[in-house]
Amino acid sequence: MSKVSIVGDALPNIPWEDKPKDCKTVIWRYSKNPVIPRDLIPTSNSIFNSAVVPYEGKFAGVFRCDDTARNMQIHAGRSEDGINWVIEPERIHFIGDDPEVARWEYGYDPRVCWIEDRYYVSWCNGYHGPTIGHAWTKDFKTFYKMENSLLPFNRNGVLFPRKIGKNYAMLSRPSDNGHTPFGDIFYSESPDLEYWGHHRFVMGRAGGWQSTKIGAGPVPIETSEGWLLIYHGVLTSCNGFVYSAGAALLDLEKPWKVIYRTAPHIITPQTLYECVGDTPNVVFPCAALVDPPNGRLAIYYGAADTVTCMAFTYVDDLIEFTRKNSL
Amino acid sequence: MSKVSIVGDALPNIPWEDKPKDCKTVIWRYSKNPVIPRDLIPTSNSIFNSAVVPYEGKFAGVFRCDDTARNMQIHAGRSEDGINWVIEPERIHFIGDDPEVARWEYGYDPRVCWIEDRYYVSWCNGYHGPTIGHAWTKDFKTFYKMENSLLPFNRNGVLFPRKIGKNYAMLSRPSDNGHTPFGDIFYSESPDLEYWGHHRFVMGRAGGWQSTKIGAGPVPIETSEGWLLIYHGVLTSCNGFVYSAGAALLDLEKPWKVIYRTAPHIITPQTLYECVGDTPNVVFPCAALVDPPNGRLAIYYGAADTVTCMAFTYVDDLIEFTRKNSL
Amino acid sequence: MSKVSIVGDALPNIPWEDKPKDCKTVIWRYSKNPVIPRDLIPTSNSIFNSAVVPYEGKFAGVFRCDDTARNMQIHAGRSEDGINWVIEPERIHFIGDDPEVARWEYGYDPRVCWIEDRYYVSWCNGYHGPTIGHAWTKDFKTFYKMENSLLPFNRNGVLFPRKIGKNYAMLSRPSDNGHTPFGDIFYSESPDLEYWGHHRFVMGRAGGWQSTKIGAGPVPIETSEGWLLIYHGVLTSCNGFVYSAGAALLDLEKPWKVIYRTAPHIITPQTLYECVGDTPNVVFPCAALVDPPNGRLAIYYGAADTVTCMAFTYVDDLIEFTRKNSL
Amino acid sequence: MSKVSIVGDALPNIPWEDKPKDCKTVIWRYSKNPVIPRDLIPTSNSIFNSAVVPYEGKFAGVFRCDDTARNMQIHAGRSEDGINWVIEPERIHFIGDDPEVARWEYGYDPRVCWIEDRYYVSWCNGYHGPTIGHAWTKDFKTFYKMENSLLPFNRNGVLFPRKIGKNYAMLSRPSDNGHTPFGDIFYSESPDLEYWGHHRFVMGRAGGWQSTKIGAGPVPIETSEGWLLIYHGVLTSCNGFVYSAGAALLDLEKPWKVIYRTAPHIITPQTLYECVGDTPNVVFPCAALVDPPNGRLAIYYGAADTVTCMAFTYVDDLIEFTRKNSL
Amino acid sequence: MSKVSIVGDALPNIPWEDKPKDCKTVIWRYSKNPVIPRDLIPTSNSIFNSAVVPYEGKFAGVFRCDDTARNMQIHAGRSEDGINWVIEPERIHFIGDDPEVARWEYGYDPRVCWIEDRYYVSWCNGYHGPTIGHAWTKDFKTFYKMENSLLPFNRNGVLFPRKIGKNYAMLSRPSDNGHTPFGDIFYSESPDLEYWGHHRFVMGRAGGWQSTKIGAGPVPIETSEGWLLIYHGVLTSCNGFVYSAGAALLDLEKPWKVIYRTAPHIITPQTLYECVGDTPNVVFPCAALVDPPNGRLAIYYGAADTVTCMAFTYVDDLIEFTRKNSL
Amino acid sequence: MSKVSIVGDALPNIPWEDKPKDCKTVIWRYSKNPVIPRDLIPTSNSIFNSAVVPYEGKFAGVFRCDDTARNMQIHAGRSEDGINWVIEPERIHFIGDDPEVARWEYGYDPRVCWIEDRYYVSWCNGYHGPTIGHAWTKDFKTFYKMENSLLPFNRNGVLFPRKIGKNYAMLSRPSDNGHTPFGDIFYSESPDLEYWGHHRFVMGRAGGWQSTKIGAGPVPIETSEGWLLIYHGVLTSCNGFVYSAGAALLDLEKPWKVIYRTAPHIITPQTLYECVGDTPNVVFPCAALVDPPNGRLAIYYGAADTVTCMAFTYVDDLIEFTRKNSL
Repeated sequence: MSKVSIVGDALPNIPWEDKPKDCKTVIWRYSKNPVIPRDLIPTSNSIFNSAVVPYEGKFAGVFRCDDTARNMQIHAGRSEDGINWVIEPERIHFIGDDPEVARWEYGYDPRVCWIEDRYYVSWCNGYHGPTIGHAWTKDFKTFYKMENSLLPFNRNGVLFPRKIGKNYAMLSRPSDNGHTPFGDIFYSESPDLEYWGHHRFVMGRAGGWQSTKIGAGPVPIETSEGWLLIYHGVLTSCNGFVYSAGAALLDLEKPWKVIYRTAPHIITPQTLYECVGDTPNVVFPCAALVDPPNGRLAIYYGAADTVTCMAFTYVDDLIEFTRKNSL
Repeated sequence: MSKVSIVGDALPNIPWEDKPKDCKTVIWRYSKNPVIPRDLIPTSNSIFNSAVVPYEGKFAGVFRCDDTARNMQIHAGRSEDGINWVIEPERIHFIGDDPEVARWEYGYDPRVCWIEDRYYVSWCNGYHGPTIGHAWTKDFKTFYKMENSLLPFNRNGVLFPRKIGKNYAMLSRPSDNGHTPFGDIFYSESPDLEYWGHHRFVMGRAGGWQSTKIGAGPVPIETSEGWLLIYHGVLTSCNGFVYSAGAALLDLEKPWKVIYRTAPHIITPQTLYECVGDTPNVVFPCAALVDPPNGRLAIYYGAADTVTCMAFTYVDDLIEFTRKNSL
Repeated sequence: MSKVSIVGDALPNIPWEDKPKDCKTVIWRYSKNPVIPRDLIPTSNSIFNSAVVPYEGKFAGVFRCDDTARNMQIHAGRSEDGINWVIEPERIHFIGDDPEVARWEYGYDPRVCWIEDRYYVSWCNGYHGPTIGHAWTKDFKTFYKMENSLLPFNRNGVLFPRKIGKNYAMLSRPSDNGHTPFGDIFYSESPDLEYWGHHRFVMGRAGGWQSTKIGAGPVPIETSEGWLLIYHGVLTSCNGFVYSAGAALLDLEKPWKVIYRTAPHIITPQTLYECVGDTPNVVFPCAALVDPPNGRLAIYYGAADTVTCMAFTYVDDLIEFTRKNSL
Repeated sequence: MSKVSIVGDALPNIPWEDKPKDCKTVIWRYSKNPVIPRDLIPTSNSIFNSAVVPYEGKFAGVFRCDDTARNMQIHAGRSEDGINWVIEPERIHFIGDDPEVARWEYGYDPRVCWIEDRYYVSWCNGYHGPTIGHAWTKDFKTFYKMENSLLPFNRNGVLFPRKIGKNYAMLSRPSDNGHTPFGDIFYSESPDLEYWGHHRFVMGRAGGWQSTKIGAGPVPIETSEGWLLIYHGVLTSCNGFVYSAGAALLDLEKPWKVIYRTAPHIITPQTLYECVGDTPNVVFPCAALVDPPNGRLAIYYGAADTVTCMAFTYVDDLIEFTRKNSL
Repeated sequence: MSKVSIVGDALPNIPWEDKPKDCKTVIWRYSKNPVIPRDLIPTSNSIFNSAVVPYEGKFAGVFRCDDTARNMQIHAGRSEDGINWVIEPERIHFIGDDPEVARWEYGYDPRVCWIEDRYYVSWCNGYHGPTIGHAWTKDFKTFYKMENSLLPFNRNGVLFPRKIGKNYAMLSRPSDNGHTPFGDIFYSESPDLEYWGHHRFVMGRAGGWQSTKIGAGPVPIETSEGWLLIYHGVLTSCNGFVYSAGAALLDLEKPWKVIYRTAPHIITPQTLYECVGDTPNVVFPCAALVDPPNGRLAIYYGAADTVTCMAFTYVDDLIEFTRKNSL
Repeated sequence: MSKVSIVGDALPNIPWEDKPKDCKTVIWRYSKNPVIPRDLIPTSNSIFNSAVVPYEGKFAGVFRCDDTARNMQIHAGRSEDGINWVIEPERIHFIGDDPEVARWEYGYDPRVCWIEDRYYVSWCNGYHGPTIGHAWTKDFKTFYKMENSLLPFNRNGVLFPRKIGKNYAMLSRPSDNGHTPFGDIFYSESPDLEYWGHHRFVMGRAGGWQSTKIGAGPVPIETSEGWLLIYHGVLTSCNGFVYSAGAALLDLEKPWKVIYRTAPHIITPQTLYECVGDTPNVVFPCAALVDPPNGRLAIYYGAADTVTCMAFTYVDDLIEFTRKNSL
C-alpha cells in the first residue's frame, strides 16, 4: 500500500498503549479498561458513548451520563491525559434564545467536531422524538444551542471536520421512535449549519454483524486515501441487539461514495465489561484521537451502555485492513 | 364570528354542487362520486390521493395512479371543469441533471402548490425509503425535479403558498419505513427550497379518529383567521387503519402555532366507495379549490385507496365549525 | 326435548317478525335492519352494541353512541315499540359522590339488567384502562354510578338477573389494554355489588369462529334447562378480527359449569351492514328481549361497529340447536 | 407470437362466456358470479378456493367448505355444466390404513390433477401444522389418503399433470404456522409420490401486488411455450392482505426455470363479492379448465374467502400478455 | 426532617451489615450475596423473589423455587438468623376444600404479611392465567388456601399489614398473559379477604428505569410519614427488560394517594449476580425486615431470576432520600 | 433397572473426567471448559455447536465457525484426544456437480453420523432459507454435497446411525425464516438419502425450559432400552431465549414413538461461559461420544453461541434419570 498521510495537527500526547505481542486483531483494547466507571459522578447510573477532543494541549469532552433515574443527559469533562477524567456533576445547560431551541427533553451519544474556529457538539436530541441536535463551544464551559438540523426521527449525527465544497457536511442515520430495527447512513449538506439538504444515501446494512442497522461513529478522519469512518453495526440475535464496529473509506470530495468497507467487524463485544451491563453486548465508538505524524489512533467507545473504554490502532493499519477485507 | 376573508384570486368556475337540504354535516359529498374511476387510464389499478389546481382558466393536476403491478406512480392530467379529467397514460418523467436527483423509485400522494411564478409538486418520493420529493412545472408537461427536501422517512410534505417571513415553508409528517403506527405534523423552512431547517413541532395525535397518526392534506388556505389546514387522521381498529379528515387553523406568521383544531372529524368513511376498495375505510384529502369571493371550497380526496372523489363546503362554515368544535 | 320453561314476565309487545319461509338457520335477521342508523343523533358517528329492556310497558335502553370525535359514550333512549328509538343527544351524566367513582373517561358496550327493584347498567368503563363499570337507574333519566366491580383490564361484564345463592353474580372477560388477542369468560360473585370474589373460570376459546376470544353477550336468560347465554366469539383472519355469535347453556346454580355450547356460530357477518362499516365483519349482541309464554326472543346486536340491528328466534329452538350442536 | 399449442384432450363443453365488448383486461369475470354461493350446502359457512376437473364428459371437483363452526373441510361435488354444482353435504372421509395417515385435523384449498390413470387431490392438510396432503380417487366417491408429501409448514401444493423426466413433480409454498408474512414457490420431485426431494427454488416475491408472498394456483397447463402457471400474490396494506393473481411460463423440462412472469396482476379484487366477505379483498384461483383446440380457459377462483367464482380467457392471449408484461 | 417513627415490634436480631465507608448510595448490598444459591435444594433450578418474616424469635419464609423443569413453585423455609436458610424440598401443598380453590397450576413471587393473628401469603397464582392467590398459615407448615382475590391477569399482589378503615387492603398490578409490556399499581379493599372492591389507581409508569411497568415489592412499612413502599420498575432496553427498584411514600389512610416517589432507582443491577443468570439484569425485592427502634431495614431481593440476595438501609434515610428525590 | 446395553464399537480413548464428588446432577461439566476458544482460528468470531466423531483411532469433526463478519460457516477439524483440536482455517468447500446443489449461502450447527461405510454431515444449510443440507466424506478432507433433504424452513436435521426398516431415517425441526418462536421434532424416512417421506410427528413443546421449541441434538445412541436422544429446549424469558438440554428415549423400530422424556433439563446455562457471550444463556449439544463397554458418554455442546464445551455422564445413569423424571 501507498503511504497514508493524515490531515491534522500533531497530537503527541495522545493516550497510548502498544499492541500486545500476541494480539492478532487490527485493534487492541486498553489493558485498564474501562477508563471511566459507571459511577464517576455521584448522579450517574452509567457513563458511555462519549466524545473526546484535544483541547489546549490537554483534552476535553462531552459525555453521555445517564442519571440514576435513567434520564439521558450530556455533561462536559476535562482530562490531562485523555484517560483520567473530571466530569461536571451537572448536565450541560445550553444557551439559546428561542425557547423552542433552548428546550431540553434529553440528549445522548454526543460527538464533538472542531470546524474552522470552534467545537461543534452533535448528539441525539429529544424534540418530539429523537433527532440531531447541535451546539457550539469554545471553552467547554459555555455551550450555545443551535437549531436541530433534521426532523425526527434520527440518530448518530456526525459532522465532517471541514466543508465539502462550499458546504458543511454531516452523516446521520434515519430511525424510528423506538429501538429501531433498521438503519442506513445518509449524507447531508448545509451552507450555514442551520438549513440542510442535498441528502445522499451513503451505505446500508450488510450481512452478519451489520445486518440490522449501522451508524456513523467518531468524526471521520481525513487521509490521503479518503475519509476514514469507524461505524457501528447491529446484529439481532434471539436475545436482542449486538453492537460491533467496522471501518469504511469514503471519497474525499463526494463522501457519499464508499470506496472500501469492512466485511468483518474490527471490534465486537468479547470482554466482561462489554458483554455484561445495562445493555449486554455493546461496543459503540463515538470518538477517536489521531496523531498524524505517526498515525496512532485512540478510539473511545461505550461498553454495554455502562462504561467508557478505549482501544488503539494505527491509521494506516486500519486502512490497510479495510482495503483487504472490503465487502 | 367575524367575516372571514380569503387570500387569492377569484375562481368562478370552481366545480360545485349545493348542499343537500337534509345534510347536517359541515362538508357534503358530491352526488356523482367517484369523479375519477380506478381504471380511467388503461394501466391503472387505482387513481386516488391526487392534487388539482386551477390552470389557465381550466384545471390541471398531478394524480397518483398505481399501475396494475401496484407500483405507485404520479401522472399529469387536465380538465375543463375540474370533474372530468384526462390523465396522461405515462407517468411523469422528470428532468434532472444529477443522477441521484433524477433517480426514480416510486412516488405517491402528490400535492401541487403555486408559489410566486410556478407550480411546485411535492410528493412521497422513494429514495432508499419514503421521503419528500419536489419538482416544478409551468405547463404540466415538463417537470423539473429538485433535491429531496428531507431525509427518509417522511410523508405528506405540503408547501405553503407563500413565504413565511423570508423563507419558504412546508409541513411534513416524519414516519418509519412501513405502515407507520405513529405520526405528528412538523413545520420546516427553507431560504431556497433546497436546504431546510428551523424545524418546529406543529401538532400531534389526539383522541379517537386521530389517535394513531395525522398528516397534512391540501395546501393550506390563507384566510384572515389563519391558515386553514385540512388534515387526515388515523384510528387503528381491530381490523386496521381508518382514515378520516379534520380541520385546523394555524397562526399566519408562526404556522407551527395551532389556534383551533377539530375534535370531531369533518369527513369519515361512510359510503361504499370509501369503505370498500383496495384499502377499506379511507378518505384522504390532497387538494382543495377555493373561490375567495364566495368562499366555496371544493375538496378532492382519495377513497379506499382506489378512486378519487369530491366534497364541498364553505370556508367560513368550516372555520366556524373548527372554532366551535376545537380540541 | 323436554319443554323449556322460561323465567320472567310475559312481554306480549316484543318486537317481532316471523321466520322467513326459506330460512334454514336457527336465527333470522330483521328484514328492515339496521333499526338504528349511525347518525340517529346529530353528534353520533355510529350507534351499536347497545342494551334494551322492557320498561313501563314500552322499552328503554342504554346505547353506545361513539361521537364524531370517535369518543366512546353511552346514552339513554326510549322506544314505544323496541324498533323506533329516541336517543338522548347528551351522554349519560352519572351521579356519584366520590370523585374517583364519578370520574368519566369513556364507556362502551353497555348491558342493562333488572335485579330485584331496579335496572343495573354495566359497561366497559375507562378507569386507567378498560374495566367493568356499574350504575343503577329506576327511570332511565337519573343514573347512579357505583364502584367499578373489577380492576382493569376487563370487558363484557354481564350481570345475572337474580342472585346465585346469596350473592349477585356476573360474567366478565379479562383483557389487556389494546385489541386483546385472547379472552375467556369468567364468573364472579358479590354480596353487595361492590366487593367481588369467588372467581371461577367458565369457558375459553375453542376452534374456528371462537378461536381468538369470546365474551358474554346479553343478560343470561333463565330457563328450566339452564341459563341461556348468547355470546360472541372472534376469529383472526389475515385481515383482522371477525366477530360472530354462539349460544351456551350454563348450570342454573353453578353457572360456571357449561352444559352445552355451540360448535357452530348462530349468526356471523354476511350482510352488507355487518361486513362494511367502521369495523368490517362484526356482529355483537348486547341485549335480548324474551316473551316467556311463547318463547319469542328478539336479539339486539351491533353490526360492523356502526349500526344497531335485530334478529329473532325462539328460545326452545335455540336451546335445541345448542344441545344438538354442542362442542 | 408463434402459435401456442396446448397439451390435452378437447373439452368442448367447457363452461364459457364471451369477452364483453368493452373489456380491456386479458381476463374477464363471469357475469353471473358467484357460481357457488356460501350456503350451497346446509352446513357451510362459505365455499371457495376449490378445484374442478372434467370427469366422464361432465365435471367433478373437490371443494373447500368451511362449516358453520369455521372448521376447514373438503367436500366432493359434481356438475353437469361446470357451473351448477351439487356438493356432498358430508366432508370427504378418506380411506387409509396407517392411523397416522388416516388422521384428520383439517383440510383446505384443494387442487385436483389427473396423472396417468387417476385423479390426485392435493390440499393443505393439518398434521401438527399445515402441510401438503395427497389422496387419489377414480370416481370422486372413494378417496384413498396417501402419505403427506412434505413436512409442515407448507401450503399450496400443486402437482404437475405428467412426470418431469422420471419423476412426479410438485410446486409448493413453504410457510409458517400462522398468517405467513412471506412465501416463495419451490419445486420438488418424487419417484413414487411418497418420497420427495430434488427441491428447487422457482420464484419469489416481487414488487407491488406480489410483494408479501406468492403461491401456485391451478395445475400448470402444458403448452408449446412452457408450463402456463396461474399463481396468486399477496400485498400487505395497512388493513391486511390483498390477494391478486398473475401468470408465469415455466420451462417444460426444468419447471424451476421461469421464462416469463407478469409484473401486473391479471385479476385483483374489484367486485363487491371479491372485496366484501369473510376475508375482504381476495381472489384465489385453484383450478382451470382448458379446451386445447380453441384455447378457451375457464378459471375457478375463491372470492373473499366466501364464494366460488369464474373468469375466462384464452391461453394464447394469456401467454402473450405474460410475455409482454414480464418482470 | 422530622424524626420518623415506625410501627411494629422491635426486631433486634435482624440480619445486618453496616454501611461500607465508601458507599455513596442510600442502599448497600450484603457483602456475602447471594445468601441463597440457586441449588440450595436438590430440585431447584433457581431460588429468588422470596418473602421472609420474623417468626417465633427466628425467621420463616416462603420461597420461589423454580424446579429443574422450570416449573414455578413456592416452598416454605426456616432460618435462625435470616441469612442461612433451610428450605423444604417439597413445594407447599395447600389445604382447601373447594377443588377449584385447591387446584394448583403454578405459583411465584410470594409475599408474606402478618395481619392480626396469622400470616397471609399472597403470590402470583396460576388460575387460567396469572392472578393473585392467598393462603394463611400460623406455623409455616400448614397452609390454608383461600379464594383468589382477583381475576386474571394480575401479579404482584401485596397486602397491607393492617386494615385501612374497616377493610383489608392490597396493592396489585394488572397484567396480560405474557411478559406484560405495561403495568401500573392499583389499590383494592376487602371486608373479609374474599370479596374485593373499591379499586383505586395508585401510580403508573414514569420515565427511565420505571418506564415500562412497575409493581409493589415488600409489604408496605407503616411509619409516621406514611406507608413506605419499595417497588420495582422496568425499563425496556434493546436487549429486553431491566428490573430496578425505587421507593414511595403513600398516605396512611388513603394509601392510593402518593406523597413522594423516587425519580431515581435505589438499587439497579450492577453486580455479576444481578446481571448474569436466567434473566439478566433483574433486582426484584419481595420482603423487608425492619427493626423499629433503630430503623434498620433489611431487604430481600431476587437477583437475575436466579438467586436471593440482601441489601440494607435505614428507614429514615430511605424516607429522606425519597422525599428529596421525588418525581 | 435392567442393564442397558449400547450398540457400537468400544471407544476406549474417549475424552473423560470423573464425576466431581459433590456433583448432584446427572451430567457434569468438564473442569477445563471451554475446550475450544472462540478465536482458535484466525478468522473465527466464535466456534460452537459442533460435531465430533471417532476417526481412525483419533477424532475428527465438523465445526461451526462464524467468521469475523459473522457469516456462518462449517470447517473440518482433527484431534488426537477429542479435546485439543486443530481446525482448518478455510471453510469446507463441497464437491457437487449440479450448481444448484453446490451452491453455498451459509451453514451452521452440523452433526456427523457414520452410516454403513461413510460419514454423513447434516447441517442447517442456506438455500433460499434455512433447510437441511447433507454431504458425505470418508476422510474429512473431501466432502461430497448431496441434495437438500427437505424444503425450507428447517433446522436441526439429525440422521439415525442405521436404517429403520428399509429406510434411512432423520429427525428435523420445521421452522420459520427468523428466530423461530415455535418448533417440534419430526421424523422422516428415505430409501436413498435423496427423496424423503413418511413424515411423523415425534414430540412437541412442553412446560418450562422446553416451552418455546425443541430440537434434536447429537445423533441418537442405540441402546437396548431405545434410542437415547439428547435434545435442546428453549424457554422465552423477558430477555430472550434460554437454551437448555434434556433427554428422551425413542422406540427402536418406530422412533417417532416417545417412551420417556425428561420433564427437567439435564443441563442449563449456569456458568459464565454459558451465560455470557454472543448469545447469552445457551447450551446446545451437537455431538456425543460413547464407549459402549463402560457406558461413558462425552457430550460436546456450544455455549453462549461463542465457544465449544464438554460435559460427561454415563448412558445408563442418563437413561435411568430419563425414566424416573419423565413427563
